[in-house]
Amino acid sequence: MAEIYSYTSTAPVNIATLKYWGKRNISLNLPTNSSVSVTLDQSDLRAITTAATSSSFTKDRLWLNGTEEDIDKSARLSTCVRELRKLRIEYEEKLTTEKKKIIPLSTYKLHIISENNFPTAAGLASSAAGFAALVSSVAGLYELPQTPEELSVLARQGSGSACRSLFGGYVAWDMGVKEDGSDSKAVSVAPREHWPDMRALILVANANKKDVSSTSGMQTTVATSSLFKERIETVVPERYEAMKKAIVDKDFESFAELTMRDSNQFHAVCLDSYPPIFYLNDTSRAAIRTVEEINKHAGKTVAAYTFDAGPNCVIYFLEENAEKVIGPIRSALANAEGWNSTEIAASLPEGFEQRWLEVLSAGVSRVYFTKVGDGPKKSDETLIGADGEPKK
Amino acid sequence: MAEIYSYTSTAPVNIATLKYWGKRNISLNLPTNSSVSVTLDQSDLRAITTAATSSSFTKDRLWLNGTEEDIDKSARLSTCVRELRKLRIEYEEKLTTEKKKIIPLSTYKLHIISENNFPTAAGLASSAAGFAALVSSVAGLYELPQTPEELSVLARQGSGSACRSLFGGYVAWDMGVKEDGSDSKAVSVAPREHWPDMRALILVANANKKDVSSTSGMQTTVATSSLFKERIETVVPERYEAMKKAIVDKDFESFAELTMRDSNQFHAVCLDSYPPIFYLNDTSRAAIRTVEEINKHAGKTVAAYTFDAGPNCVIYFLEENAEKVIGPIRSALANAEGWNSTEIAASLPEGFEQRWLEVLSAGVSRVYFTKVGDGPKKSDETLIGADGEPKK
Repeated sequence: MAEIYSYTSTAPVNIATLKYWGKRNISLNLPTNSSVSVTLDQSDLRAITTAATSSSFTKDRLWLNGTEEDIDKSARLSTCVRELRKLRIEYEEKLTTEKKKIIPLSTYKLHIISENNFPTAAGLASSAAGFAALVSSVAGLYELPQTPEELSVLARQGSGSACRSLFGGYVAWDMGVKEDGSDSKAVSVAPREHWPDMRALILVANANKKDVSSTSGMQTTVATSSLFKERIETVVPERYEAMKKAIVDKDFESFAELTMRDSNQFHAVCLDSYPPIFYLNDTSRAAIRTVEEINKHAGKTVAAYTFDAGPNCVIYFLEENAEKVIGPIRSALANAEGWNSTEIAASLPEGFEQRWLEVLSAGVSRVYFTKVGDGPKKSDETLIGADGEPKK
Repeated sequence: MAEIYSYTSTAPVNIATLKYWGKRNISLNLPTNSSVSVTLDQSDLRAITTAATSSSFTKDRLWLNGTEEDIDKSARLSTCVRELRKLRIEYEEKLTTEKKKIIPLSTYKLHIISENNFPTAAGLASSAAGFAALVSSVAGLYELPQTPEELSVLARQGSGSACRSLFGGYVAWDMGVKEDGSDSKAVSVAPREHWPDMRALILVANANKKDVSSTSGMQTTVATSSLFKERIETVVPERYEAMKKAIVDKDFESFAELTMRDSNQFHAVCLDSYPPIFYLNDTSRAAIRTVEEINKHAGKTVAAYTFDAGPNCVIYFLEENAEKVIGPIRSALANAEGWNSTEIAASLPEGFEQRWLEVLSAGVSRVYFTKVGDGPKKSDETLIGADGEPKK
């Protein structure tokens, strides 16, 4: 077998604080509104991808969590691979013009091996991390000169919110105005170091199968919700500026209120769709009431809930308030998996309303306690074996 | 004791198909939008009120389901009583001018005794029926010449949606434009006889205490939902005309779709409120999915769900489709109380999705199977004893 060139990259999950919901162009994944997210630490949640290429490989192949998938059957995967190869071709042409030495990797087939360190089905933005890792690893393998912003345009075509996982810290996805989508990309609002004390606690709800997939849900909303237009034309543009400002100013209370209101409004337009779409369940509602109770007892907004297209609650808070937030939740979820070495003990302020904690206790059996993190990174690990297939 | 004059009236519950949510004037109960409802048959759900007066009575008194309430402590009750007495004074003055014989009932105190034939706490529009019965009984006692439309203005001041219970059949509440609320009243869209085959099945959810009262919920929505304005300014005015037309045309499919969409949107603006308001729970969602499944199997829209400010589902359908609607639900709720002599048996079409029925089965233990009904009626019963207090 000829030499195998490979590059391994990890990429993070991101959880939006201003929600992406609605496509104005389905094949290009162009959104109806801009969005903002926080990138989460990769030690808890990440995708890792090894991209490899060799003149010996006979076709583009992809393995996802140990199972081979047919790239040709996924338009989104094919697009990402095609666009990355196109950039490599441009790069090779440039090197040729400059009379530099090149290896014609663009002419070789790719083997891509990707894994998450968390269950895909948990509804934790696995496709965002996955497509970001795919783009990062192939871009690394191809030594592409493109910036993360430029690469985010490709990741976006794989999975909309994947574009935001190309950056660490606090990230905006500018919806852009161009028809070809070339300006619909992620930009950094602030790096992790700007506001490093942001924490995230994820309550994984004992979920049934997801009610409606995000892609079809979005289309239903765009087509049928009579309140949706008001959201994207009036509400989100204002919130987009306010959210970025709250991050730049490290103004947690504004950040939190905007986050909660926007999560609620996203689920409101889902409910205003026809037929209605539900992602929140009784466990989600109990999580909302618990966060409200935590804030009430703290005397100010120290925690913010947000929900993506599923019942899992993500709670943002600052390190200085960790005990106030973790204490009551841990008292309800003492037996949940995932607390690991967290030293913050269960504790319940006097008079804390118990009824929602009881619902939480019955509905959540897994947590992730994590924090704001960095963008994609090169990894020394490799997922590929000497035979060009996933290591056993 | 001097002679006791009394009059007993029953009044129905009504369930909106275009929802009332939001007050533009809180003390006058003036709504932010017009609404439409169906009045339900009084043999299943009704309030009954005896209004009595006598020169022997020393103060206005009221008993509600056997417990005496302090009229002075309820601004809404006091207003209704005061306004009714004012109309009686006008009437007595008119009779005096015409030199007719009168008994000066307006100068006597009132004893009002009211009862529901269903649990108040069940969240079944008991206050609407109650205030309608109160207004009807006192108006009957006072022999007032006012029309139901005119009386509905008084009932509205007791409880907004009570105004719609002054009519049978299909009823609109025109929001009106005047500041004093004198044109904010109920009008008949069509009497029961126009479309008598409308049926309603109410699934009473095993409810916890209501999350947020309607009155405070409405105010939160008006003050905080950024989508609410679009609803009241654009969406509802269109639906108001469309809903009335669907009723006049007896167009069930249009009626049903509007009903479902408007219930969803009402709950959507609740969720868009801050803090968010939830009335639907997992049982409610299961009811929605069950209705969707019933419609799918029927090949057309034969049933429509709607929810007021609580988790109970009201399902509207036509008599001709009763088996299609009742069959699957009864199969899940065979042991629920309230089927009474309903002859329609449990039956499940082949391939009917079971998972929502299972949730329903766990969450509902009481049904009411009823139909469109008439407005308030004089009753031969009386709730008052010879001592001027509730009969023992």
